[in-house]
Amino acid sequence: MSLEKVSSNKAFDGELVKYKFKSDALGGLDANFNLFLPANAAEGNKVPLLTYLAGLTCTEDNGAQKGHFLGPAAKEGIAILFPDTSPRGAGIEGETDSWDFGVGAGFYLNATHPKWAKHYNMLTHITIELPQVLETAGLPIDFKRQSIFGHSMGGHGALTLYLNSVLQGTKQYRSVSAFAPISNPVNCPWGQKAFSGYLQGGVDEARDKYDATELIKKLGKEPVHVLVDYGTADNFYKNGQLLPENFLKAARDTGYDEVQVRVRAQEGYDHSYYFISTFGEDHIHFHANFLKA
Amino acid sequence: MSLEKVSSNKAFDGELVKYKFKSDALGGLDANFNLFLPANAAEGNKVPLLTYLAGLTCTEDNGAQKGHFLGPAAKEGIAILFPDTSPRGAGIEGETDSWDFGVGAGFYLNATHPKWAKHYNMLTHITIELPQVLETAGLPIDFKRQSIFGHSMGGHGALTLYLNSVLQGTKQYRSVSAFAPISNPVNCPWGQKAFSGYLQGGVDEARDKYDATELIKKLGKEPVHVLVDYGTADNFYKNGQLLPENFLKAARDTGYDEVQVRVRAQEGYDHSYYFISTFGEDHIHFHANFLKA
Repeated sequence: MSLEKVSSNKAFDGELVKYKFKSDALGGLDANFNLFLPANAAEGNKVPLLTYLAGLTCTEDNGAQKGHFLGPAAKEGIAILFPDTSPRGAGIEGETDSWDFGVGAGFYLNATHPKWAKHYNMLTHITIELPQVLETAGLPIDFKRQSIFGHSMGGHGALTLYLNSVLQGTKQYRSVSAFAPISNPVNCPWGQKAFSGYLQGGVDEARDKYDATELIKKLGKEPVHVLVDYGTADNFYKNGQLLPENFLKAARDTGYDEVQVRVRAQEGYDHSYYFISTFGEDHIHFHANFLKA
Repeated sequence: MSLEKVSSNKAFDGELVKYKFKSDALGGLDANFNLFLPANAAEGNKVPLLTYLAGLTCTEDNGAQKGHFLGPAAKEGIAILFPDTSPRGAGIEGETDSWDFGVGAGFYLNATHPKWAKHYNMLTHITIELPQVLETAGLPIDFKRQSIFGHSMGGHGALTLYLNSVLQGTKQYRSVSAFAPISNPVNCPWGQKAFSGYLQGGVDEARDKYDATELIKKLGKEPVHVLVDYGTADNFYKNGQLLPENFLKAARDTGYDEVQVRVRAQEGYDHSYYFISTFGEDHIHFHANFLKA
């Protein structure tokens, strides 16, 4: 799993590097990711890691270019990892037919359907493989201080990876935030399509592992740190793809108050990176509270 | 010249709107632009206007999405106009053959070669037509307070439009700034190719009107407000396409000191929007000094 440097850009006094490596989790395919290291990162000064999961159709570049995360992360001294959103080049029949399934739409799960199980394992790729690859490469990151955030499908990914880490007691992530997350995917068309395709057990198999609203119902005593923003003018929200209200209700029913699970409806904002960039700095500061504690 | 709203995104409490109109300056073709209006803009509170000119291959979207300008502009209460970089759809033979000439590469001049003269008039489009279109539409902008900035080819555009406005005494722009501008185009391959194509008199015709280094030599007594940043790791700089040192020398020879013409070499930065975004806030603040004076 040796890393190849694809490109490098200085930004905000730090460095954004695009890397490539052969990914075991993704069935041996080449995987790209971007890593932003702030200027203060050094062998003697390992920095916390915040992972950003992008949404449908995106790559490792969208968040880095349009999220407005690098400036605030540079100020806070936090690294940001930008993975891709799916394997690329698996050559599976139909994988490029839809914009919301297959390439660009890995949904941050491990596929169990035989057709997809060899390559579509973004869950392992994000939670296990990438941290290992970074550590093996000797990058100055303190893996004991990790948090995660994401947008839309990536918001779903961030919430489910975080909540599972709390449920399983691994505590891999200290905090989670999401922009317009798919918050209850077993009850929306995007999630139902993805789960029916990737999982042998379909939507039923997903309920237990890959649905933030279902996952938070299983918690209650463990402290959590969750921030969610969505826009009231978001057409995907209006069309019932996001369902943050279901997640919010489940969190409150479980006993989490506004300090532990904060869900904010942002008046007039839509699903775009203009929305994300508006609240990007705020999310970085939210995570910095926990990453630097 | 009635405006059609193409799309609208709330951002940083303000609004970014993409408009379309039939452009006389561009020979009747449809022209797009983005306009960011901060939340405080209103009929009774007209705001200053900062125009951003993008570089080769770009559109009205690049600066809006990747420049990190909107947040600082929102805080300062400044509108930003993002024009396109050339006419589109003129159907002129060869106009899409190169990435550095024709479509996406209008060079912010008025073409005099008969082949291009009907459509390639970005100078008039930016300086006269767009302000008129905005004013006619009743948008809450104070046209007496304008500044201009840009990147690469757009840095060339910003510098030449500004310096010409000083020379001609129109004072259309109060200040100019540029990221990695093509600063002496008559002496670089990009400029020579563009001028040879668009102008009947070729490079000689350009010397007088479209070269920042030549233009600043004609000044000296008039106060100017110029900020230029370029990166020392910028390959186009290294390959002699930008020549900011020529512009700097001409400015100093003319008698302008560091307060009036500031040219900064930014160690290790390249030509990308990661460079621009790093210094975007700084440039907005620079202009705010003059726009809000």
